[in-house]
Amino acid sequence: MTILKRHDTGAIAHLTLDTPKTLNALSDEMLAALQEQINTLSIDTTIKVVILSGSGKAFCAGHDIKQMNSARSSSDGGKSYYQDLFARCTAVMTGLQKLPQVVIAQVHGIATAAGCQLVASCDLAIAADDTRFGVNGVNIGLFCSTPMVALSRNIPRKHAFELLTTGKFMTATRAAELGLINHAVPNTQLEAETLQLANTIASKLAVAVKIGKQAFYQQLQMPVDQAYAYTSDVIVENLLYQDTIEGMTAFAEKRTPNWEKE
Amino acid sequence: MTILKRHDTGAIAHLTLDTPKTLNALSDEMLAALQEQINTLSIDTTIKVVILSGSGKAFCAGHDIKQMNSARSSSDGGKSYYQDLFARCTAVMTGLQKLPQVVIAQVHGIATAAGCQLVASCDLAIAADDTRFGVNGVNIGLFCSTPMVALSRNIPRKHAFELLTTGKFMTATRAAELGLINHAVPNTQLEAETLQLANTIASKLAVAVKIGKQAFYQQLQMPVDQAYAYTSDVIVENLLYQDTIEGMTAFAEKRTPNWEKE
Amino acid sequence: MTILKRHDTGAIAHLTLDTPKTLNALSDEMLAALQEQINTLSIDTTIKVVILSGSGKAFCAGHDIKQMNSARSSSDGGKSYYQDLFARCTAVMTGLQKLPQVVIAQVHGIATAAGCQLVASCDLAIAADDTRFGVNGVNIGLFCSTPMVALSRNIPRKHAFELLTTGKFMTATRAAELGLINHAVPNTQLEAETLQLANTIASKLAVAVKIGKQAFYQQLQMPVDQAYAYTSDVIVENLLYQDTIEGMTAFAEKRTPNWEKE
Repeated sequence: MTILKRHDTGAIAHLTLDTPKTLNALSDEMLAALQEQINTLSIDTTIKVVILSGSGKAFCAGHDIKQMNSARSSSDGGKSYYQDLFARCTAVMTGLQKLPQVVIAQVHGIATAAGCQLVASCDLAIAADDTRFGVNGVNIGLFCSTPMVALSRNIPRKHAFELLTTGKFMTATRAAELGLINHAVPNTQLEAETLQLANTIASKLAVAVKIGKQAFYQQLQMPVDQAYAYTSDVIVENLLYQDTIEGMTAFAEKRTPNWEKE
Repeated sequence: MTILKRHDTGAIAHLTLDTPKTLNALSDEMLAALQEQINTLSIDTTIKVVILSGSGKAFCAGHDIKQMNSARSSSDGGKSYYQDLFARCTAVMTGLQKLPQVVIAQVHGIATAAGCQLVASCDLAIAADDTRFGVNGVNIGLFCSTPMVALSRNIPRKHAFELLTTGKFMTATRAAELGLINHAVPNTQLEAETLQLANTIASKLAVAVKIGKQAFYQQLQMPVDQAYAYTSDVIVENLLYQDTIEGMTAFAEKRTPNWEKE
Repeated sequence: MTILKRHDTGAIAHLTLDTPKTLNALSDEMLAALQEQINTLSIDTTIKVVILSGSGKAFCAGHDIKQMNSARSSSDGGKSYYQDLFARCTAVMTGLQKLPQVVIAQVHGIATAAGCQLVASCDLAIAADDTRFGVNGVNIGLFCSTPMVALSRNIPRKHAFELLTTGKFMTATRAAELGLINHAVPNTQLEAETLQLANTIASKLAVAVKIGKQAFYQQLQMPVDQAYAYTSDVIVENLLYQDTIEGMTAFAEKRTPNWEKE
């Protein structure tokens, strides 16, 4: 019995965090399951889009506090365990952005602390409009320092700082305005809207999306001149793909492309 | 017969992309014409603001796909041509930000792919409220990797990523909310509103705007401490301009400045 | 008689710029008074939150132009004075972000030029909904080059550029949408809303907020991988605080934490 369910529909992999009793906490076991799927997907050439959701009342409520507390009994007070835990957690968060597939968070209920970081770390996110977002570790004396890396790269700094220091919730509507998620939709349409977005992206040339996604995060961290030099190389490589030649020829001939590798 | 029209009104240069049959595509010829104007304007001390618009149904639909396709017949499949094309395109896009004048995009119809990049690369942009923006190369298998450099420095990353991977259009209202443009206005007021913005800026002390614009893009790429050291030098230099002395004196004396160099 | 009033209520320090005749201009004397408070607060372990406000009609209208003009009579035309002035001003602006306390700007009336920079430099800001924001030095021939460092790290670049080159005002509502401030509230509720925000943050574990605030600004300037390595160290240190152990234990036991150091 797995804690991270997966079922595929065509080119879309559906991953579901499935420990609803802990609000899908990112326990050691859940992080390991996520890392295993990331490893598998990283070499999968048939899956084009990943939808990440949670079962039960919440998308994800962050780390497993009870499990973290139990580590304190070791001789170093848990220090080496915590160092290892956050290395593993970081590998999962950054691993999502390194996947060749586009990863969409399908969010409902609550997404807090590392659960909010998980949303921020996905490429795209759609949330039910009654979802509550927060980085509320400060409420128990643990500032959400690692979640803020992803959060502060999604939304303006003063709004991020307020969430981090007050521990208050943000609505899905506000999250969409600020850029943490792409769209807030009625709960009844969450699954359908997410699937529609996934299908749209899955209909594109996978190799173009793959090279584009990789370049997206790389160029964001470069000075402009370097970013242009790098992405110019990327787009020239893209231009020489056989399927892109077909796509551009089809465009000029006003017909639908016949993509061979798809 | 030029493909890039120019007429000046006072200190404002009006550049109009004028190949409406190709939706003002950024062909080799158009890029050359733009680069020529950039070269000319870079040493022009009478023009203070540049308004960039397009004639016909669209502002600009991006690169000239037919011309790009024709390059494939060369022995390297077009590779060296494409490398050169994107170097020339990048020079135009970044050249706009290096101009001493403020460049305003006056946008209508559609602004897609490198046409959307052109909007993102201008200092300011005003668009008719029925304008549609997109970075939709992905639809023909060519991810908009170079346009995303400018786009992702204008709007939040998840919204940029969605546009890039779905190829969908964004409205002008949304573009203004997210920061790709400054204002969405009724189509009937587009020209008047753009001109009003241009006139406002042209009424300022040109040398102050020039030094400020240059510093704006430089400091954005620096760590905060370095940005302050650099802009402190810039503002001290600005303070010693004769016309700035007059401006500050006039302010203290509650009168209008008499600027000599204007 | 001080020009920067201070009174403390519990763990909250209230600083009030109090030269209403000059619209609380950042004169040499005011900058010195602010720096003195920053120095004092930086080693204060009882104050958790600082509220910065202005008396009279304005929050702050920026530098003292008359004082700046009078420096021109020196043999170097004021150059060395201006260099020193902007070094002192930068020390105050960046000093606010280096404080262990959270700094909230309580803004009303106008916040212009370096006064707008002061808002942008605080961690959080709440403004009366009739407040007007601007970086309007360009109107007197002095581009707001140093204010733009803080401004352009708060709001999208095209909106920042428009404010800088037009000298126009922005409303509080717009400032909240774009990220310059957290909330725009009715004038009658400004003090109460700011105090409520301050009280919320003062109720958190101070040492966690302190380590989090410091990490917030540091990690913003790092590449993602470095940011995660750094904040992982920070959160591990946070996890080993005695009061954080108590906070996490209390959470698991569904009770309120008893924090000793508070």
